[in-house]
Amino acid sequence: MSPRIVEVRRNVLAKNDALAARLRRTFAAAGTCVISLVASPGAGKTALLAETLRSLRSRRRAAAVVGDLATENDAARLRESGAPVRQITTGTVCHLDAEMVGRALEGWDLASLDCLFIENVGNLVCPAAYDLGEDVRAVLLSVTEGEDKPLKYPVIFNGADLAVITKTDLIGPAGYDEALARRYLDAVRPGLEVLRVSAKTGEGMPAWLARVEAALVQKRTAGLRA
Amino acid sequence: MSPRIVEVRRNVLAKNDALAARLRRTFAAAGTCVISLVASPGAGKTALLAETLRSLRSRRRAAAVVGDLATENDAARLRESGAPVRQITTGTVCHLDAEMVGRALEGWDLASLDCLFIENVGNLVCPAAYDLGEDVRAVLLSVTEGEDKPLKYPVIFNGADLAVITKTDLIGPAGYDEALARRYLDAVRPGLEVLRVSAKTGEGMPAWLARVEAALVQKRTAGLRA
Repeated sequence: MSPRIVEVRRNVLAKNDALAARLRRTFAAAGTCVISLVASPGAGKTALLAETLRSLRSRRRAAAVVGDLATENDAARLRESGAPVRQITTGTVCHLDAEMVGRALEGWDLASLDCLFIENVGNLVCPAAYDLGEDVRAVLLSVTEGEDKPLKYPVIFNGADLAVITKTDLIGPAGYDEALARRYLDAVRPGLEVLRVSAKTGEGMPAWLARVEAALVQKRTAGLRA
Repeated sequence: MSPRIVEVRRNVLAKNDALAARLRRTFAAAGTCVISLVASPGAGKTALLAETLRSLRSRRRAAAVVGDLATENDAARLRESGAPVRQITTGTVCHLDAEMVGRALEGWDLASLDCLFIENVGNLVCPAAYDLGEDVRAVLLSVTEGEDKPLKYPVIFNGADLAVITKTDLIGPAGYDEALARRYLDAVRPGLEVLRVSAKTGEGMPAWLARVEAALVQKRTAGLRA
């Protein structure tokens, strides 16, 4: 990259960090736990989120903000859960940033939400650099993408709090080698927490939902201590 | 995007267009047909390319340049075909550009090659804006990513010459609706040529290889006319 682009990029990220820090304070004041999902296109972000919102419905007040270049399809699909959902369409922009998230939240009473999910644009590269003020960043990785994605896209795995292996129902047909995938994950990010789910069969959903619940409780406890 | 970023981006793309035009003239002078592959991470670009290089080996002189953020894994995998392969590692950069491709080709005698493949970084967003001087840009789309990717990532489908549906062996297990996928493709890019392949079973490979051969012949004929 040319020095000029490097400088512009540094300024953009500094501005984003400042806006993300402000969002983080807003979320903390409201006691809202924020969980973001990053992944390749078609890794199953929306399917996991739809199941999650449906499961949380009876006991938690959850909402979602979802990013795509075009269409309102994901928001429409997620609204079937009954949860409030807003779509951010980015046009040609390859990631969400804190400013887009802040704008999408305008008019929402965050204090009425236990949990907010942010689904990023499908991209294993660009979202890595943009803090969205979230408490937990989960990187999803479908078994059909192959075992080596952590090696090839290390930055996004280094910035995540949690990896979620998705579409485990396709392990057999895809010929996915779970032990190898774990070795690659460990090589890039030793000790990273890893869950495995199939939104289609429900396998692994209880552990994922327990992880979400733990994040909510932690946020609430931190709020009471503050 | 801020006006300053829009301006920088415009300058970057103008510079890339100029370098791509120069590459295109170099490829034309050498009579080398250049085919690029763009897709999500894990859509099967390398698997298709490995099979293609292996099949072409006995009758065509083919080479490849392959982009990834990190690792030389894809180049090593593709070299098993016996073809010359060079890896471009982009670090945090989310796409290949004409300058990177030009640098990677330094010292290669292009006139000795019938065909050069360029495998882009796995990303359905950012590569769209960067011309690499190629003759044919193929966008790959695996059946496990779902039917709706053209609707959500329209820019890359608008800039492609050809769509290749990959991993057709997983249509059943993934519950992929081919008719729906074609409708979405047609909605975004009416009349776009569509092929379907499974690098694993070989289904569709003859049609893909015939398409590659047709591009080679067309390039050669254009060179003889010039």
